[in-house]
Formats: sequence, C-alpha cells, structure tokens
Amino acid sequence: METKRFAAALVVLTLAASPAKAQDPLPSWNDGPNKQAIADFVGRVTREGSPGFVAPADRIAVFDNDGTLWSEQPIYFQFAFALDRVKALAPQHPEWKTTQPFKAVLDGDLEALAASGEKGLGELVMATHTGMTTDAFAKSVSDWVATSRHPRFKRPYTDLVYQPMLELLTHLRANGFKTYIVSGGTVDFMRVFAQRVYGIPPEQVVGTTFVTTFAMQPDGTPALTIEPKVAMIDDGPGKPVGINTFIGRRPILAFGNSDGDHQMLQWTAAGTGARLMGLVHHTDSAREWSYDRQSHIGKLDKALDEATAKQWVVVDVKRDWKVIYPFQR
Amino acid sequence: METKRFAAALVVLTLAASPAKAQDPLPSWNDGPNKQAIADFVGRVTREGSPGFVAPADRIAVFDNDGTLWSEQPIYFQFAFALDRVKALAPQHPEWKTTQPFKAVLDGDLEALAASGEKGLGELVMATHTGMTTDAFAKSVSDWVATSRHPRFKRPYTDLVYQPMLELLTHLRANGFKTYIVSGGTVDFMRVFAQRVYGIPPEQVVGTTFVTTFAMQPDGTPALTIEPKVAMIDDGPGKPVGINTFIGRRPILAFGNSDGDHQMLQWTAAGTGARLMGLVHHTDSAREWSYDRQSHIGKLDKALDEATAKQWVVVDVKRDWKVIYPFQR
Repeated sequence: METKRFAAALVVLTLAASPAKAQDPLPSWNDGPNKQAIADFVGRVTREGSPGFVAPADRIAVFDNDGTLWSEQPIYFQFAFALDRVKALAPQHPEWKTTQPFKAVLDGDLEALAASGEKGLGELVMATHTGMTTDAFAKSVSDWVATSRHPRFKRPYTDLVYQPMLELLTHLRANGFKTYIVSGGTVDFMRVFAQRVYGIPPEQVVGTTFVTTFAMQPDGTPALTIEPKVAMIDDGPGKPVGINTFIGRRPILAFGNSDGDHQMLQWTAAGTGARLMGLVHHTDSAREWSYDRQSHIGKLDKALDEATAKQWVVVDVKRDWKVIYPFQR
Repeated sequence: METKRFAAALVVLTLAASPAKAQDPLPSWNDGPNKQAIADFVGRVTREGSPGFVAPADRIAVFDNDGTLWSEQPIYFQFAFALDRVKALAPQHPEWKTTQPFKAVLDGDLEALAASGEKGLGELVMATHTGMTTDAFAKSVSDWVATSRHPRFKRPYTDLVYQPMLELLTHLRANGFKTYIVSGGTVDFMRVFAQRVYGIPPEQVVGTTFVTTFAMQPDGTPALTIEPKVAMIDDGPGKPVGINTFIGRRPILAFGNSDGDHQMLQWTAAGTGARLMGLVHHTDSAREWSYDRQSHIGKLDKALDEATAKQWVVVDVKRDWKVIYPFQR
C-alpha cells in the first residue's frame, strides 16, 4: 500500500516536472489560429502515412530576413552598416568630405542623403561592400556587428531578432526541415552572423550577390575580390529565381513580411501538397514598430491582400507574439 | 562446456560473415599510395581531439562532374544531349534544315559543326537549354536520360559514372562530409539525375547558370523561364566563385580532372588545416579513355604540373581503379 502511494506520488511529481508549457515548441506565441495553423502544418507533413506527408529531404522552409527574422527600422540594418562604414573609412577618403552622397553621411544630413536618391544609395553600398576581398569584407561585418548599437534599443543589431521566429526555426529543424534565409540583403553580409544568430549555416543563406573574381595575389595565395557590380538581386521576382538557383527545390513553407516577398510566397503556394505561407504584419508600435501599406521600408500591400484573400498565416505581432526579442524574456 | 564451445563457434561464424574485405569502404580502389592518402585524410579530419580534426559542418567536399564523376568522351554528355535535342526539336524548326549550325547537326556533318566554332556551339546550347520554363527543361533532360544511349557502351549516359568515385562519395558522407558537385555543366541539367545517380541533392549541385525570370502565366500560376543569357560560368576561375556564392565555406577536399578545375583545387589548397586535392588522370584507353595535355576535352596540363609538384593525389585510372563503371562489377 505504501509502495503504491509512493509510486502515485512519483507520477504526480514527474508530471509536475514537465508541465504542458515546457513541451510547447513555440512558447513565445500566443494561442490562436496562427499558432494552431503552424502546429497543424508541421503535424501534417511529418506524420508518416498521412496524405500530407512530405519526405524530410523535401521539407524546405524559406524565410525573408529584414522584418521577418529581425527588425528593419528605422532603416535596414545593412544600410546602417553601410553608413557606419562610410564614417569608418572616411579618413582614407578625404574627397568624401566634399562629394555627395558621402558628405551627407559624414555631416549627418539626412535630407541631402535622401536627395541623392537610388543612385546615391547605390554608391554608398558599392563603396562599403565591394572593391575588397571576401575575407576583408567579412571582417568588416563582424567588427561592425560586435561594436555597433541600434539607436532605439542601444543593443547590438543581432540582438533585435524575433524570439518567436527563432522558436519557429528551431521547431522546424527539429521536425526535419532545412531552414533557409532568402533575403534582399547580400549573402556575404548575412553569412557572417546567420549561423550564430539563427542556426542557419552559410550554404543555406540565399541573397543578393555581387560579381566576384578569382585571382592570385602577389604572395602566391588565391583571393576572391568583390567587384562593384551586382550579379543577382534577390528581391521580389528575384526571390523565386534565387530559390531555384541556390536550392533547386520548391519550398513547402515560406515566411516574409513585405511585397518584396510576394513572389516567393506565390511560388511556394503554387506547388502541390501541403504548404504554409506566412507574413509578419508589424502592428506593435509600443514594443517594435507598426507599418504596412504606406511604409518606405518593408511596404506590405499587395502581398497582404493576397494573404488575406487566400487565408495565409498573417501574424499580428501585437496579438500573436508574447515577446519580441530574446532579451525581453 | 557444450555451451562454451557453441559460443566460441558463434564468434568464429560472426567473424567469417564480416571478412576484412567487406569492411573496405573503397573496394574498387587498388591498394597503393592514393587509396592510402584518402584513408589517412578521412581518418585525420574525423578523429576527435586529433590536430587535423574538422567539425562535421566544415567537412565540405567538392567534385567536378565531367571526367571526374562520369565520363566525358567522345564529347561532353551535356553536349550530346544538346545534339539529340536539336534532332528532336527539328520538326518544330523547319528553318534549321538550312541554317547553321543546326543543319550540320541534322546532317551529321561534324566538319561543318566544328567550323561553326564557339559561336555555333553557343547557339546550339541556347536553342536546347533556354526559352522554356524550368519544368519543361527538366522534363526534356529526364526524357533524354531515359532514352539516349552512349555510342561506345550502348548504355544510358548515367551508367557511365565511375564506381570508385561513387564509393568515395559514399565513404565521405558516411564520415560526416557534405558532398557537392561543382561543374562547368549547367545546374538545371545535373540536378535532374544527381540525387539518383550520385546521392547528391539539388541544393548541393553548383554549376553554370542561365538568367531566369519569374512571371505569372495566363492560367494564373507562376513559372520560371530560362532566358538565353548565361548568368555565371562555373569553370576555371568561376569554380571558386561558384563555391563562394553557393556554399560560402572553403572546401577541405576537392577533386577534378582538368585545367578547368585548377583554380578550385588552388582555392581548396590555400585554406588552413588538413585538406586533400585530387585529380583523375585518364590513362586507360582499353577500359575508358586516355587523354591529358593535348586533349580538346578535359585538357589536363597546368593542373597536372602543380598536382605533381605539390604531391596532390593524382589517380592513375589504369593502375588505381579495379573497375571503371558499376555495370562492370
């Protein structure tokens, strides 16, 4: 009798030690239709023998980066990197003091910077991202990641990743998915931190690329130099192209947050079998930012219409996410 | 006593059932310094705590395709595909009967074909590889693979893969390596059969690519169309570029067979830590083909000099390989 009671107590203790909450793979997501849709989808594609079953090799999940895995306000973080690099490189370029758009960056003159338009922005990107070896560029990114701070949160930019999306990435990988970034940002930039921050290895980062050239250096070692010429723009219609070029399989899950992800979502949706298309809708100006149809950054308009009409997962950040960033837990 | 003798007999039987030969991961390789170099390298990088140890994620192995994983004589197999496709498509192109280089292909006039030069070959490639959706192209390749026969061996081209290299691929994967193809052939072509023939999934095939465009078709479904414009040539100096773009890590093992692989081998060699660079030297005109410095296809000259000087692995097909193709076992 005593033994039986002891055993019963043990069962109670065991259950208490592993409460339902600890089993939840998405603890930062509030319960609701979106969390349920994700759980249903993962269950359906991984249940062997079920009509929705997908072999592990075909469980390809793609994620936009800016605004989907980390924040993108008040400016794209990679553009913040470019501005910081202009300041860091200025001593080696005395001519920048009097040449736009560099002068505008050094003077902090946002109006003049905006006036330089796309051409000006392109010049800033080329001056900070090209004309050096791949190794030198990677070092400039890792130095910046280590030392720069986001203006609002006063933290490294790589702290501003979305905790709920990190949980989703981990949950998918635990269920045999291969998780990819498919971003308008450049591959060389994201690969520096994607493994550490997202658990995504370099070979699973798809993005915009520059032409690079191979040459022997004077010391007899080979180097790859990044040329000031874009090879592929991985944005909008370029995203399904990038997916086809780099991965060669159609994803069964795609997540984005802007019209730049629209074609990637359409491409994913047009495959056969179970699939999940998702959008992060930024609705929380208190904890993050709130923007969509009118935004210059991360404009979400046509994709939102199609997502709503076709009942894709549209994450309402304010309603669906318990926390935004890992440091807020 | 009887039990003990029975147990001893069982041990003997068990040992007999798994003789040393069955344990050899490279049974089609003759014993010698090359087989030994491969075994030593794999042992060194996988032995935890050894100075040569490489974490599994960094065990990237790259292989050229034509002449390294399958044969490339009397013409590159992808070019045989192009010629066969011209014949198959001719009924839809009556103008080809009188237009070079198509007329030469249809007439079997090799002299006129050669006279059309690189420009002519380019036109044949564009006419058979572009101007269609990625799905339509993939279907044309799988149809060809299923029906075409190699002129010498009267077998599907995909039978002409090297058994010793298949064993090497399998052995590397069993030891935590990720195996990639890095070929001058086009990605869209190789991906159709790479998984089945080599066990290499689409996302691990790096090669020459065409510009592709995304568009909605009249029926409302999206399609990717291959445009008649090369995006990236993955040959010679383009191979380390392709490796950097697609993989973003430097390989620790690279295998090629021609000067087109030279820079890929140099790029691999210039990394730090244990690494293996290998060349397949075609020396067996009886069982396969014999060619190197003077060959129009798979010319091996400068890379052979560097490989010899630096004591890279240079496979002598005649001496090192017990069998060439799987069907000869």
